Order: sequence, then C-alpha cells, then structure tokens
Amino acid sequence: VEGALLQHGGEKGAICVSTMAEAEFFAAAGFEDITLAFPLDPAKIERAAALSRRIRSFAVLIDSPQALDAIVRSQLERPLDLFLKVDCGYHRAGVDPESAAASELAVRIASSVAVRFRGLLTHAGHSYHAGSKEELRSIARQETSALTRFATLLKSRGVAVPVRSVGSTPTASVVDRFDDCDEVRPGNYLFYDAYQSALGSCSLGDCAQSVLTTVVGVYPDQRKLIVDAGSLALSREAPFSADGGYGIVRDEGLRALPLGVSSLSQEHGQLFATGDFPVESIPVGTRLRIIPNHSCITAALFDRYHLVKEGRVVAEWRPVRGW
Amino acid sequence: VEGALLQHGGEKGAICVSTMAEAEFFAAAGFEDITLAFPLDPAKIERAAALSRRIRSFAVLIDSPQALDAIVRSQLERPLDLFLKVDCGYHRAGVDPESAAASELAVRIASSVAVRFRGLLTHAGHSYHAGSKEELRSIARQETSALTRFATLLKSRGVAVPVRSVGSTPTASVVDRFDDCDEVRPGNYLFYDAYQSALGSCSLGDCAQSVLTTVVGVYPDQRKLIVDAGSLALSREAPFSADGGYGIVRDEGLRALPLGVSSLSQEHGQLFATGDFPVESIPVGTRLRIIPNHSCITAALFDRYHLVKEGRVVAEWRPVRGW
Repeated sequence: VEGALLQHGGEKGAICVSTMAEAEFFAAAGFEDITLAFPLDPAKIERAAALSRRIRSFAVLIDSPQALDAIVRSQLERPLDLFLKVDCGYHRAGVDPESAAASELAVRIASSVAVRFRGLLTHAGHSYHAGSKEELRSIARQETSALTRFATLLKSRGVAVPVRSVGSTPTASVVDRFDDCDEVRPGNYLFYDAYQSALGSCSLGDCAQSVLTTVVGVYPDQRKLIVDAGSLALSREAPFSADGGYGIVRDEGLRALPLGVSSLSQEHGQLFATGDFPVESIPVGTRLRIIPNHSCITAALFDRYHLVKEGRVVAEWRPVRGW
Repeated sequence: VEGALLQHGGEKGAICVSTMAEAEFFAAAGFEDITLAFPLDPAKIERAAALSRRIRSFAVLIDSPQALDAIVRSQLERPLDLFLKVDCGYHRAGVDPESAAASELAVRIASSVAVRFRGLLTHAGHSYHAGSKEELRSIARQETSALTRFATLLKSRGVAVPVRSVGSTPTASVVDRFDDCDEVRPGNYLFYDAYQSALGSCSLGDCAQSVLTTVVGVYPDQRKLIVDAGSLALSREAPFSADGGYGIVRDEGLRALPLGVSSLSQEHGQLFATGDFPVESIPVGTRLRIIPNHSCITAALFDRYHLVKEGRVVAEWRPVRGW
C-alpha cells in the first residue's frame, strides 16, 4: 500500500495488479480504480464481479473469444469492465492486432451487454531483451503505435477505444514523453534492480532494494564466502548477461565489493572473489547487502520490507502475497 | 508439522531444520530434538541459547574457529550443543577432514566449556549431480566413510565423536542399509520432485507435490498455452538436464501431457507442445498440474498445501517460512 501511495504522490490513485489477491488487498485498503493485468481465469469471474461491485472501477482483461464466452455464460448482474489484451511484439499473451480475429473479438466485446469495453492494453515485455537505449525507445514506440493503429482500425468498424494502456519499466524509463497513449503501467521501477541497471533503465544507485545477509563461512582456499541468503532469499532469477551472478554484492553501506553471487542453494549463497580480493579480510558475522537481479520476485519471498534511511530502519512495509 | 510427524510414524521424533525460524516453529509445536543444519550466524547465538533452554536437545553447527570464538565470547550460562560441519566432497561448506585445521578445531570444540560436542555432520550435495545410481551409491559411501575416517583420527587424538550425521535425499534413496553412521537427514524425499526422478532417487509417480494451475490462454499459432503459474508459483529452479523445462505437465488426474514448461515470467507460465499435440484441444479454464523441478523451493512459495486423496482435498498443511 505504501508503495502504491508513493507512486501517486500520496493519493490512492489508479493502480494495476497481477493477481486477484492483490486486487482484493488494495480494494480493502481503499483503492477505487484497479486493473488486473493478467488474462482472466474463468473460475474467477464471480470473484471479479464481487470486487467490481465494491469499488468504483475494477477492470480485467482477456485475449480470447472463449474467455468472453465464459463471462457471457456467467450472466452477471452488472457488466464487467474489460480490456482486450494486445500483443505488441512480446509474443507472450494477447491478440495479434493485425489479425481479423482480433478485430472480430473487439467488435464482439464492444457489442456485448455482459461487459463494458474499457480499451486496449499491452505490455512490451520484449523490452527486457533490448541491446541499447535506442532499441528500448524503438520498442516504446512500437508499444504505443500498435495500440493506436489498432484503435484507428476499430474506429473504422464503429468501435470506440476509450483507453490505450501501455507500459513496461524499461520503456517507461527511457521515453521523454508518453505520447499516443492514455495510461502507463510500469511496476518494477518502484524498486528497480540489477537487471534493469544492466539493461539501461536505471543506474545501480537507483536500485532501492537489497537483501541484508550475513557471512557464515570464509574459505580462503576456495576464494569464497558463504552467506545466509540462498535461492529462498534472492530467487534464482537470471542476470541480464550470461556472465552475471544472482545479484550485486555490496557492503552494509552499499559500497562495491569484488564478489560475485556465483552459486545458490536453498539457504546458502556462495560469493566468489573476483580479481585478487582476499576473502579472509571479511570475518564471519559480517553483514553484506545483495542487490537482486529481479526485485519483483525477491520482494515476494519476504513477508516484510524494512525501509532504511541513513542506515536506520524508519518503516516496515508488509506486502500482499498469493493469488 | 504434519510432514515431520509422517517421517517418524506419528511421533515427534528428532528432526533437522535449515533456519532458526523453523527450529522455533517446531519447538513451539512440541518437538524436543532439533538440529539446525546451517552454519551458525554469530548474531543468532542468543536466540539459539534461548531455544536450547526450552527443549531437550537443540544443536547447531559451525565449521570455523571464528564461529567457535563467537560462542565462547557470548559467555552463555549453559554450553551450546554443537556439530562440526565436514565437507565430504560437495565443497560448499564444512571443514576438510584431511586438514590439520579440521582436527585442531575438533579438539578445540571438544575441550571448550562453552559448547558440548555432539559430533560430525556432513551433506553430500554433490549427489545431485551424479550420472547413475552406481555413482550415487559411491557418493553415499564417501559421505559415511569421510566421517568414520575423521572420527577414527579424532579418537587417536583423544576426542570421542558421539554422532556421525549424514544425509541427502539422493544418497538416502539408493542405499540399502545405513551402515557406518548414526543418523541420516534427508529432507526432499518427503515430497520428491521432477529433479529427483530424473536423477534416479525416485520415480515420477513417487512425486507427491504438484502445482494446480489454470489455462488462461490458448495460442495454436504458437503451439502453446499460457497458465497462471509463473516463477512465483513454480520457482525458476533448474531441471536435471539442460533440455528440461521448469516442471513436468500433467492433467488434473496426473496423466502425462506432451507439453513443456519452456518459459516463466512472474505470473505467466508458457507451455509449449512437443510433437504434434494440438494445444487447441485444451480449452481456456482447464486445470493442469505441474510437478516442479525442486519441491523444497516451490513449497516455500505457498502459505498452504492441500492434501489430495482420490481427487478430494482431505487436509491442509501450513508451512513455516522465513528465517
């Protein structure tokens, strides 16, 4: 909740979530405009309808006629707010906006009394594999132009598109102006992480999340340390480049250390020295910080976050987890 | 708790845990003999001492003189039960039992009034990379013989070794008799998983854990399905062989399906068809089960487990999480 407030200057503004549990959590906290940006599970239609009765605006998304059929069959009392998910080049989910089937589905949604058409929504996840800022900007243009072209096409078929919703942290981080769209939904930028820094979305100094860990073993012969952060603390999310480890190692004051997170098991992290750094200079019991590759996943492994300002814990946030 | 009871025929027997939070959780549930098999963090010595006052036996482990020094400096009222962690070939943590430093540390532990020497403990984690059952059996022999040789050496220096503690799921699964050791500590075998099955510790039918997931998108052009189990539900733990995916896909009744979990993002799983399987034969809304690569990590991502017998939920377990 505190993170969502920060992103709206302290207001309970419009937010986007990725699970029904998150939607219900934020609704209970007083948020009145929520989009669940994950293809709707037909088994959750009743739960979605219940939530949409409780707050001013709750929107879900679909990308298939079958999902629309499931909503129609549910015979809800009130129409469900609905986005059509569009594939702008990531090829994970979403309809191909150039296809006849996509237009057909949009026309069906717009004319159905079971739903209220909110607009087109896309996510340029392929921005995570961009090789340069110029490529990121090009993907950002692709993200918006795919929706604008599709909206123009739909207008010619008599379908008005109220909202064009775009957004990924990499694209949102490099564009100067959000032209040609109506809303932007980056998420990771709240914390950023080592991956985003390597990609060029931010600097390492912008990364607001680190895992505090303790050295429990020093092995000069193997030139390594063992810390108490394994894959249950850091996650095994991949680095931006193949030669990276599972995070960036810092001392407790966030100063760089020539150590790589080369290997993780459940509770053990193995930090190997790079160059001729003498690991024996770091005693057992030393606290270190590891900036994770993917802050979203790492955050989900903890039931509380400690907010640190000038070395002191000034607040504690409790996240929502589960589905 | 229910899982620990199962492993002792319904009794609250001796158990091994990997975090202090787990030790405290099981102590609160009435378990009286607990070993924390993770190198002791000096900052947790007081917490360990407090727990050891509450139950009959609480043992921790160290593998460095610095950790012993930290315990001595703590000036505890009662000695702390202590294992010496031994490296039997995995090379993650533990002392090299052939080294003079290892014998030196064992002698120091045995003669210190700050601790009570419980014995030698090892974990043959390299068994996870064995190429055959014969290799697994050879590693199992290495696991026990490393401790027995070291115990014999220590005896010649006047140090009695009360307990030789071994155990990894792969080694414990293939040996016929547990000779030459005093206790065995496998953990994963409670559930097993796709990795253990590929390694030869068990069959796929022995795997007791699966993630129930729902198909939310069907993409015949891409020959794939999207399900609502991403890396937050399955974890991104690696398969046994490089060509494996993030789990084994089954229908709700656990019958095989020719689909591979090729790609995960936070909440999306992408299942690609193998062979000429027509993905369009599986409608949106279908429930599937995915047997994860590494059940320990997947289990930790959930706040409850549903126990299913003949298709019906017969119990719900709540795990301990955190540190």
